[in-house]
Amino acid sequence: MEKIEILGLIAAALTTSSFIPQVYKAWKFKSTKDISLTMYMVFIIGTVLWLIYGIAINSLSVMVANTITTVFALFIIIAKIKYK
Amino acid sequence: MEKIEILGLIAAALTTSSFIPQVYKAWKFKSTKDISLTMYMVFIIGTVLWLIYGIAINSLSVMVANTITTVFALFIIIAKIKYK
Repeated sequence: MEKIEILGLIAAALTTSSFIPQVYKAWKFKSTKDISLTMYMVFIIGTVLWLIYGIAINSLSVMVANTITTVFALFIIIAKIKYK
Repeated sequence: MEKIEILGLIAAALTTSSFIPQVYKAWKFKSTKDISLTMYMVFIIGTVLWLIYGIAINSLSVMVANTITTVFALFIIIAKIKYK
């Protein structure tokens, strides 16, 4: 693996895992009033397109990051709808 | 510009602009209780690394997206600290 791909994977690990505390917080406290549903609806369409882009440019980092981030964003959207 | 770069830029436009409603909501209602500070602290380190990665792989979409997203994330962090 190229060195730059390692940097990309670290970046991917950070932006992806960053959503974990938000998912945890939303589900634990069952409170999502301050979270913008519009943000996550637009965001998730974006991450799906990023995934397609990542496949097209053959960037492992972009692919992995956006697959997992899409799942986390989905969990936040579900929490937002459930605990609005 | 290659067609795939256009898809990348649309993806970038979506994931980037998605933060606008969250920035607006946080600053308008001065309420950020449900927003995870940890998320945005980890996230912003990630977007800075993504920016470096984007420069390295010469991906305009990755560069533009992560520059602007870093700024929006910063606005959310400031709101979170200001209105905690």
